[in-house]
Amino acid sequence: METEVLKEQHYVEELVDIIRSGLPKEELIDRLSDYHDNDIADALTKLTPDERRELYPLIGVERVAEIFAYLDDAEPYLKELPIESAAKIVSEMDSDDAVDVLEEMDATTKHKIVGMLDKEASEDVRLLFSYDEDEIGSRMTTNFIMIHNNLTIRQAMRELIEQAGENDNISTIYVIDDEDKFYGAIDLKDLIIAREYTDLEDLISHSYPYVKDHEKVADCIEQIKDYAEDSIPVLQEDGTIAGIITSQDIVEAVDDEMGEDYAKLAGLTAEEDLNEKLTESVKKRLPWLVILLFLGMVVSSVVGAFESVVAVIPIVMCFQSLILDMAGNVGTQSLAVTIRVLMDEELTAKQKLMLVVKEMKIGFVNGLFLGVMAWLFLGIYICVIKGYPIHHALLVSGCVGIALVTAMVISSMVGTLIPMFFKKINVDPAVASGPLITTVNDLVAIVVYYGLAMLFLVDLLHVTG
Amino acid sequence: METEVLKEQHYVEELVDIIRSGLPKEELIDRLSDYHDNDIADALTKLTPDERRELYPLIGVERVAEIFAYLDDAEPYLKELPIESAAKIVSEMDSDDAVDVLEEMDATTKHKIVGMLDKEASEDVRLLFSYDEDEIGSRMTTNFIMIHNNLTIRQAMRELIEQAGENDNISTIYVIDDEDKFYGAIDLKDLIIAREYTDLEDLISHSYPYVKDHEKVADCIEQIKDYAEDSIPVLQEDGTIAGIITSQDIVEAVDDEMGEDYAKLAGLTAEEDLNEKLTESVKKRLPWLVILLFLGMVVSSVVGAFESVVAVIPIVMCFQSLILDMAGNVGTQSLAVTIRVLMDEELTAKQKLMLVVKEMKIGFVNGLFLGVMAWLFLGIYICVIKGYPIHHALLVSGCVGIALVTAMVISSMVGTLIPMFFKKINVDPAVASGPLITTVNDLVAIVVYYGLAMLFLVDLLHVTG
Repeated sequence: METEVLKEQHYVEELVDIIRSGLPKEELIDRLSDYHDNDIADALTKLTPDERRELYPLIGVERVAEIFAYLDDAEPYLKELPIESAAKIVSEMDSDDAVDVLEEMDATTKHKIVGMLDKEASEDVRLLFSYDEDEIGSRMTTNFIMIHNNLTIRQAMRELIEQAGENDNISTIYVIDDEDKFYGAIDLKDLIIAREYTDLEDLISHSYPYVKDHEKVADCIEQIKDYAEDSIPVLQEDGTIAGIITSQDIVEAVDDEMGEDYAKLAGLTAEEDLNEKLTESVKKRLPWLVILLFLGMVVSSVVGAFESVVAVIPIVMCFQSLILDMAGNVGTQSLAVTIRVLMDEELTAKQKLMLVVKEMKIGFVNGLFLGVMAWLFLGIYICVIKGYPIHHALLVSGCVGIALVTAMVISSMVGTLIPMFFKKINVDPAVASGPLITTVNDLVAIVVYYGLAMLFLVDLLHVTG
Repeated sequence: METEVLKEQHYVEELVDIIRSGLPKEELIDRLSDYHDNDIADALTKLTPDERRELYPLIGVERVAEIFAYLDDAEPYLKELPIESAAKIVSEMDSDDAVDVLEEMDATTKHKIVGMLDKEASEDVRLLFSYDEDEIGSRMTTNFIMIHNNLTIRQAMRELIEQAGENDNISTIYVIDDEDKFYGAIDLKDLIIAREYTDLEDLISHSYPYVKDHEKVADCIEQIKDYAEDSIPVLQEDGTIAGIITSQDIVEAVDDEMGEDYAKLAGLTAEEDLNEKLTESVKKRLPWLVILLFLGMVVSSVVGAFESVVAVIPIVMCFQSLILDMAGNVGTQSLAVTIRVLMDEELTAKQKLMLVVKEMKIGFVNGLFLGVMAWLFLGIYICVIKGYPIHHALLVSGCVGIALVTAMVISSMVGTLIPMFFKKINVDPAVASGPLITTVNDLVAIVVYYGLAMLFLVDLLHVTG
């Protein structure tokens, strides 16, 4: 018997073929209904503007709105349409998707379209725009099921079916009281399997988690993630439900937050994407570089203080870059670990101390290992290639080795303490720590290395180049 | 009128108080049912082992299993219990959560517990363990609703209600054919609002996205994320459904992938957490440091070739660290942007070329800005503090400025090309790029800087220190 092998997914290519096949309308509509909105969105980008404009009426405005929500950037596709049609599509979108699309548009078009939205969409969009970009309210959707707490199971079920036509997020049903305040939540599963004469009250979880609309995304995203729910309600100060955060919003927010931190670790002030303008990118990268330039000048002047050592034993300067790079790398390792730990958990003072001690221990163990390697290998190199006598060579490489261990222990400490300090004074540690750590580590490494060289090689032992 | 202010969420403290209140059993059980499993999990960690052991029988093994899935590390709490009870709890957990817990245990306990699981749980756990950690199959849950394609709407609904008792993930219903192969998916919403005599076939989406069980998580997570679904099926090679990936799994996977990349960017071979053992941490950090040490030695020997320049004009060496740090930082910025872009999208050759050109342009614009700043400020510094004549000072700082521009343009190019190259040969660019980029940039910066100094200052103009 032949084993049937799972067919590959070529949905986007299939869709383009179907759309271009010249099938009768009815059949085309039927075939398209089989595919996922995301795949149709991808297929749209492969069509010509004319093909797209012919397709939209067949699909219907509701589904076009859902498909447009999957486009990476829907703005150019909306622009191909008369502004009335664009407004109709945006009206049908989930409020958070509509806001995303509108934000991509130029101010004039945006205002025109907002003015043409239907009443409900317009209210929702204005609500979302009223929040700052870093507030959780700006990420929520107003598409959810809400019922009163005094219904029977049967009434609740009927209400659900009625609202489900308009709203996609049905897996949690939000319950409000007589004053329209958030009262609790019902898991759809519990409602479906409930016996008819159960009291609705018994299904309601009264201490259901929620977030407040003005909370900062960065502050509450970890907490939301921990609940691992399909959705979490966003409440206004008066206790009414403004919207919900769905698990898709959570995926996006986690991805964004991590992307931001990733960018910051690399010395960008914010994340960049492929289509970013040159001037935008320059603006995101220049601030840190300027700070680094001035800090680098400070380091340079400290190096300048050791000119005399280099004048006597020029070979010493060959290993400066080695020691600085190693110290910098170790500091970045400690920084990355510390930032992730600080992001995930609230640490007690004792835990913080333990983390610093542990980082220093790691720095010492790694430093010892690398210091000994450097001592031996560089000693051989200085002796064989540069022609120094072996005992002088081992003295020079010994300075490198000791400087490595010392610099690595101190870098580990600095890489842990500086982000903790910034976190303490409420400055984002991922942004602020990088340049400062580099500079402190450079200074420490230079002072230790040239200091050792001055003490042991020049003053005590009178080694010369 | 007084505005009622939203009460703060102190669920964990409330729970601890309730549990310690000595309420009658019935009431205690009723109160607990109001709270979220995640909050009860947090409360558990604040109790004494005796309090916990008294609490479990009241909550019931099914809910204890759900609560344990929310613990960061459930292993110590399972260890407090007789092994039979631990096995019962693990049996009730979702398969992916059960596997997570089992993986934290020592091999002996793990084997004992796996041997004591009930039949279904034991099969599921063995299936999940059969996948590599980086395969999507290892992340799936076997907790989902599956129906045959030949049912009526009423039959499908009855089947759903029956299966919903055992399975939490009900928002998508998976449909299989006569041969038990994946046939399509139904959105629960569509089933709920469907009229009784609709054909079930009309609700089924036949070209529903799926992943294959042996696909690498890193390869398919972006695609899964794009579909923004509550769950995606995981198929075996023969077309049967092995399990599903829920949006909670997606959040976790995205978080993990980003965390790994973040760690790799910082020169760790994998992510670390707070409770990692010293030896584990050393092992994760040492590989890159050793590679960097040897690459650093190569750089050192190149610096050695320019000893003669430094012997003549020692002040030149003061600015080496400045140029290397700037080149390194610019290279890391380009690296971070390139890795994120490569992760998110498949680029055409043209797009890749455009990215390289754009990065070089950014490097040039930033370099020009910083180069001019360095030229002026360092010129003043060398003249005023070091007492050089102004035209010599501006020549030396001019070399620094030109070296900065050149090094930054080349670093941008290197920082973009190297990750692209590693991606091309299927090596993880986030791991491999860091040390190589640092070294190439160091070498370029040193050759350009000391080369310029040798040419302009020593050979042509005979500047001396």
